[in-house]
Amino acid sequence: MPTNYENYTCPIKNAVSTIGDKWTLFIIRELHLGKKEQGFNELQKALKPISSRTLAIKLRKLLDQKMISKKIISKKPPKVEYKLTKKGTSLEGVLQELAKWYKKGRFINK
Amino acid sequence: MPTNYENYTCPIKNAVSTIGDKWTLFIIRELHLGKKEQGFNELQKALKPISSRTLAIKLRKLLDQKMISKKIISKKPPKVEYKLTKKGTSLEGVLQELAKWYKKGRFINK
Repeated sequence: MPTNYENYTCPIKNAVSTIGDKWTLFIIRELHLGKKEQGFNELQKALKPISSRTLAIKLRKLLDQKMISKKIISKKPPKVEYKLTKKGTSLEGVLQELAKWYKKGRFINK
Repeated sequence: MPTNYENYTCPIKNAVSTIGDKWTLFIIRELHLGKKEQGFNELQKALKPISSRTLAIKLRKLLDQKMISKKIISKKPPKVEYKLTKKGTSLEGVLQELAKWYKKGRFINK
């Protein structure tokens, strides 16, 4: 199995590059398990202690990757809502495997 | 479903806190798909462009979490080898789901 990360395109590597980040996964988890459509402030509150700056950067990245979409609710006052796209929702299997692994892995000691 | 991250113990949240980090996942992937036992320099080469400092920090964290183990091969010159523990190997399902998601998700456009 080739391990040269520069020339070989491994789907695990690409998946990790896309979502292998704590806050990104927490945002996806929140929109998956919590309210399906959430505004910026709602997300920030749920993801405490995330900073506005980090949340804005991660949401931008997720929008660019079409993992979430943004709906403009009102212009004055400005209000938007974020939700998972089909692509974002399709991460469910990964989240479930993570949970399964954690529940099982905790009890394995070597 | 509770979303208060401070008082509620969600297995997804805990799993992400444990391994939700690009380099940590790349190290696990390398010991999973590449040579099963690898020294520090070997890992650093495979994980280019990781820095020695980052690799040392991530390996320490993985050792503390019993995801990998370290074997001392020789004292002079100092040589050690890292490999996945049972707990680390049990992440296989997560890596497979990630790969599956990536292969499928790429073609979903909304």
